[in-house]
Parts: sequence; C-alpha cells; structure tokens
Amino acid sequence: MSQPQTTTTPILQGLRVLELGHFVAAPFCTRLLGDLGADVIKVEPPSGDPARQWGEQVGGRSLWWSVHGRNKRSVALNLKNPAARDVVLDLVAECDVLVENFRPGQLEKLGLGPEALRARRPGLIIAHISGYGQTGPYRDRAAFGVIGEAIGGLRHLTNHAPGTYDLPPVRVGVSIGDSIAGLYAAFGVMAALWQRDRLGGDGAARSLDVALTESIFSMMEAMLPEYGSLGKIKQPTGGGIATAAPTNAYPTRDGDWILIAANSEPLFRKLAGVMGRPELADDPRFIGNAARVAHVEVLDGMISDWTRTFDTAALAEVLEAADIPSSKVYTAADIAEDPQYRFRGMVQEVDDPHLGPILHAGVVPHVPESPGTIRWAGPEIGQHGDDVLGGLLGYGPERVAELRSIGALA
Amino acid sequence: MSQPQTTTTPILQGLRVLELGHFVAAPFCTRLLGDLGADVIKVEPPSGDPARQWGEQVGGRSLWWSVHGRNKRSVALNLKNPAARDVVLDLVAECDVLVENFRPGQLEKLGLGPEALRARRPGLIIAHISGYGQTGPYRDRAAFGVIGEAIGGLRHLTNHAPGTYDLPPVRVGVSIGDSIAGLYAAFGVMAALWQRDRLGGDGAARSLDVALTESIFSMMEAMLPEYGSLGKIKQPTGGGIATAAPTNAYPTRDGDWILIAANSEPLFRKLAGVMGRPELADDPRFIGNAARVAHVEVLDGMISDWTRTFDTAALAEVLEAADIPSSKVYTAADIAEDPQYRFRGMVQEVDDPHLGPILHAGVVPHVPESPGTIRWAGPEIGQHGDDVLGGLLGYGPERVAELRSIGALA
Repeated sequence: MSQPQTTTTPILQGLRVLELGHFVAAPFCTRLLGDLGADVIKVEPPSGDPARQWGEQVGGRSLWWSVHGRNKRSVALNLKNPAARDVVLDLVAECDVLVENFRPGQLEKLGLGPEALRARRPGLIIAHISGYGQTGPYRDRAAFGVIGEAIGGLRHLTNHAPGTYDLPPVRVGVSIGDSIAGLYAAFGVMAALWQRDRLGGDGAARSLDVALTESIFSMMEAMLPEYGSLGKIKQPTGGGIATAAPTNAYPTRDGDWILIAANSEPLFRKLAGVMGRPELADDPRFIGNAARVAHVEVLDGMISDWTRTFDTAALAEVLEAADIPSSKVYTAADIAEDPQYRFRGMVQEVDDPHLGPILHAGVVPHVPESPGTIRWAGPEIGQHGDDVLGGLLGYGPERVAELRSIGALA
Repeated sequence: MSQPQTTTTPILQGLRVLELGHFVAAPFCTRLLGDLGADVIKVEPPSGDPARQWGEQVGGRSLWWSVHGRNKRSVALNLKNPAARDVVLDLVAECDVLVENFRPGQLEKLGLGPEALRARRPGLIIAHISGYGQTGPYRDRAAFGVIGEAIGGLRHLTNHAPGTYDLPPVRVGVSIGDSIAGLYAAFGVMAALWQRDRLGGDGAARSLDVALTESIFSMMEAMLPEYGSLGKIKQPTGGGIATAAPTNAYPTRDGDWILIAANSEPLFRKLAGVMGRPELADDPRFIGNAARVAHVEVLDGMISDWTRTFDTAALAEVLEAADIPSSKVYTAADIAEDPQYRFRGMVQEVDDPHLGPILHAGVVPHVPESPGTIRWAGPEIGQHGDDVLGGLLGYGPERVAELRSIGALA
C-alpha cells in the first residue's frame, strides 16, 4: 500500500456529541466517536455512571472505566433539578448529536423530549439506544444485554449441538449485544450527519432508533429466511461450523485450544500430511467437504488425538510452517504479547492519572491518513464541569457556584 | 415520542458505493449502506461471489444470498482482463466510496491501487477489510472469520468455566467477526465522508483499514487492562456472568431455555417469591450480589429445579407477571413469530423473483424520519451489467457487446 498523506485533522474533528448514557451501549457509541476525534461531553449523575463500579478495581477505581470513559469530558448533573435541565439544553445548543440510552419515554419525563431539544438545536441528530426500540408492544420492557442477545437469536447458537450435554448455552463473555448496538448507533449517527451537513444535503434533523435485540438479530445471516422458506430451525454446532470441516478448536497437551480451519481440499491434504497420515486425504469418508462434514465427529477425533500430542507453541509452528490457517485461541495474555497488535497500536500503554500506566485497546477503525488517538483516560465524575460550563457555555463563576450550591451540578 | 416528520430522502440517498467484495465482511458493510439508501454497485467475478453458494439452497439458489445481496446492483467482471480493469476505473470515477476485502496488496496487483483509483476519483474513500489489517507482520496471513474471532479474544470466552468439560469452546454460530468488521467499516466510511463533504470539511480522501481481529478485540471490555494491571486472565463463565447472580439460562420442562436476570435485591426477592421460597431472599448465602455470586452453583441449581417444573410458555407468563427480566432463548421460529419484531418491520416478507416470498430481517438502524427499505432481493450474477455500463457509464451497446465478447464482462 502506498504511504498515505497524514493530515492534521482527526476524522471527526469539529463534531460535538452530548452523551446522556450509562452502562454499556450509549457510552460505547460515544467512545467510538471520541476515539476518532469528536468532542464528547458525558452528562452523568453526581453518583456517576454505574459502569464505573464494574469489573476489577484498583484503589477503588475501575480499570474498565479508564477505557470506557476515555476521551470524554464529564459533567455531573442531577437531572431531577430543573436548573440542571436548563444546563442540558444549553449544552444541546452547542452539540450536533445527542446519544442516550434511558428507557423509552424517560427523556420526555425529564422535559428533554425531541421537541424541547430541537427548539434549542434545530437539526439535532438524536440516537436512542434501548432494549427493544422506541415503539411496539415491548418498548417498555426492562432491557438487559443478555436478554437482548437471547431474543436476537445469538444465545441459542452459542452452544454445543442439541443432546451433547445438559449445560445451558453459553454467554459470549462480554456485553456483545450492547457493544454492537452502540456501533450501529455510531454508524447511524454518521449517516444522518452526512446527509444533514453535506453540500447538497437536506439539513434535516433525524433520529436513530437502535434496539439491542434487532442489532444482534441483523447479524444472524440465513437463520430467518431458512426458517421461513424451509421450516429449518438453525441449531448450534459447538466449536465447529455446520457446513465446513475440519474447522474447530482442538486441544493441546498443555491445555490450550488451537483453531484449525482446513476445510478446502488442498488444506485438508496438507493437514493430513503434517499429521503423518497422508492416506486420510484419499479416504472416501474425507474426500470433499460434504463427506468430511458427514464424518466430522470421527475426523475431529483423529485431529484431536494428534493435536493433544503437542504443546501449543510447537503445534502452532508445525501448522504455520505448513501454511494451514490456524491460531491458538487467544487469552488476554496472548493479546497483550501479540506482535501484530503491538505493531498496529492495538495494545497501548496509557498514563492514567489515578491508575498509572494501564493497557488500553487501540482505536478501531484505523484511519491511516489521520489516526484516532487516546487523548486521556476515563475522567473523574464531573471533572470537566468548570471547563465545559465556564468555557463552552460561558457561564460566569458565580453561576457555576450557584448551580453547585443548589445541587444541580456536582 | 413525538411523531417524526417523514422526509422523502432516504438517509444515504445521493451516495454511491463500489463493492469489490466477497464472502461476508465487505458485502455486509455494503448491505448496511444499501439498506439506508446508498446506490451499491457490486463487482463480482463471472462465477459470482462464493457466498452465493452458502447455506440452504432452493432450486439452486441460496436463501441467504437473497438477504446478503439485497439492494445491490451486480456487475460481473473478470478482473484479470485489462478491459475489465478499465471498467472498474470508470465506475470508481462515479463513486464516493470503494469497499473491498481482498487480501492486502491484491488490488495493487490488479492495477487498482489507491493511486490509480484516486487518479480517477480524487477524494475517494477506500475501506479495506482484512483479517489482520493492511500493515504489520501478520498482514499476509490467510484470514478466516473463526481465526479472527479466536485472536480477538472472543472464542476463549464462549465456553463453560475451565474444568467443566473437555469440549472445545463454542463458535458463536454465525460469522460474527466478519459482520462486526463490516459494521466498523460502514461506520468509518460515513465518518470519512462527513469530514470530506461537510460545509467546512477538508475534502480529503481517506482510507479505513479494518481488521477482523481488532474489530472483535475492541469489544472485549476490561480483558486487556485487567491483565495489564493485575495479571488477571479473563476466563469464560458458561451461561452466567462472573459478577452478577442470578443471571443465566435455565431449563424448562419442554426442553427450552429461559434467560432470567434477577441479580438486584428487589428482583431476587421477587424471584424467590414466585418460586414459592421467599425465605431464600433472607438466606445469608443469597443476601447481596457478592454473596449470590459466591454461591452461584447452589443458587442456579435451585432455580433450575424450579424452572424444570414448567413448560416454557407457562414459565414465561409467571416471570412476566412478576416483572422479572426474562426471555425464552429465541430460535428462528420464535423470531419469526415475535410481535415486537413484526411490529417494527424486522421480519419482512420480500418478493424474490426466483425464490418467491421469503423472510428478510429488516433494516438496522431504524431512522423514523426516513426509513431504510428493502428495494429488491439479492440479484443474479451480472444482472445490472447493461443498466450500469449503459446507463451510469454511458457506454454504447457495441462497447458492452465487445466487453462481453472478450470475456471482460459476463
């Protein structure tokens, strides 16, 4: 690839975003916007976003928060106080976008419905993120990430084949539904901004109504049409893929797993060769992907018997030397030490003023001409109150002090 | 929510996108753009995108393709023919964006590197999607979705707790890594377009360098900082959540699973009540989330013993009446029949000219003021060759015929 020209303009410089978010989905959306250069102002209650309490703590501070809150300015407002509501409206007047994940209808109850907001900022883009969406019979139901993932169809598929065991289908291990919904919201926000702001654009205010359930469901591929046309209910297939073999995670002698994807004819022949069993490539049970899928249990058993004779590092070398697509199933330790992640700035040491040097995941997507940056770690609750109210909104010190004294601002 | 004004402008009307994609990631990105109104021109080889062969077929046609290819125009070009390369450059001149997922460096080999492309279309936004990214020591490695998910850290977490069994960690069941990478690319494309095209924008061409591994890794929450600061390697926790209980999938008498998330004090008290065991809420083992997490196996066992006495529908009613966050773990059949999905147009019957009426997932995100639409189902290979070359590029019929006769166009 030719070397790109690097500009001095972060890709989202000039964009200002107000976050009325908590937990995962809305804050993840604004993290993505902030990573690419947007000025994100997070309004949170004086007690802070509850996500600040999540995960492992060091000295009473969440390590995750350092990442989840990075590049944002925090303003702590008690939204039950009418004076705080007025501050929010003043902030809206200075912002292009509002991202929120209250329960549907909650903003209206706070006097911050779309009409009130757009009276102060015509053209405001509003991204609503919720469990089920802003409309429909389920809109008022309580939304939890795991439930959204179950309704989206994902949980049913993260399991071994029916009948393998009595254990429940597994959770993905992170709040994947919230993060995917947040990413959809970020995409929708930029789409709405482009149509609003471009030369020849329509200047229109738009809303994004992002549901966690639907965000997951949108990634379920052929699940729905295959049911609709054939009555086929897609079932989980454990570590493998229903339509390709061999592709699975295989055990090693030292207790790790190695992913091997060798489901084409040339790749399977190579694998049979390094296994010291070249005859398998000519075994009628294993000629062609369809035959291998039909005999996948016996085949996976043979491969597992072989992989179990190697330590992980030795097996990885053997497979790599044979150019067979494969990888150790990475843990956090593997990620931290991976040369590719390091090369691409995806594992970065960030100086957190409270936590000291801390590892952050880098910025996605890469924009080679004007890379996103980690400018600061997750701030303290209300750290930027004076900065934002004094600087951006031009409030005098007396007014800021007054807001503090009446409990509107913390 | 107040009724939005509906405009007649789809949110991405006026945007034209060229796809040089295959399989999942790049085509998923352009599906998202096309769903919101962009004109997507897909260039594929005369044999078609291999994804056309994936999944269940009806009359030799993939049901998934109907969704994956929808709203796109297909032009079938043999890129090994220099005349086809010239057609691509003519197309680029008419497009705002190129989305591709060849192996890194492949476009240059075809004479379609960024310089050649931008000579024809200054300001072109180029989204590259690949397994490991366009740079770094691993950039040339073969990329498969499952391997990207393993390196991204997801596969390690989709498992029961270490020691539970000897089975491999499960695959999510769909190509989630490809889809998430495609969604990141769509977000990045819109961000680059906004900065390029807005009033006061910089008009700059930019690239997005999206790696499948990194797209997954970016969603792994506290996994990296907790390892870096504490040496803690995040482990899978099966159906539950390491830090909250009870939250799991519980079995029903008729063999389904129900998600129950009752990890706050009031919710747990409600659950104990409907279980007919109100004393559990005052049992020292279960007072407070931390205690419940410490005794989660015993607690999940008690809840499972109770849920197993109900058929799914009856249990769902009991839980809903008690206002306890819960849901059946949905299969394709549940999704197809769900009233919320139907209400919000997320389960749509589309008329596919070859497959007849077929169910499609709706458009995400919802834009109430100017909804995205499903305008047509996945086209045939090269179906829009005459339309695009004749109409958009203004080639005469002789030239189109000539391109066909030399095998550049199919």
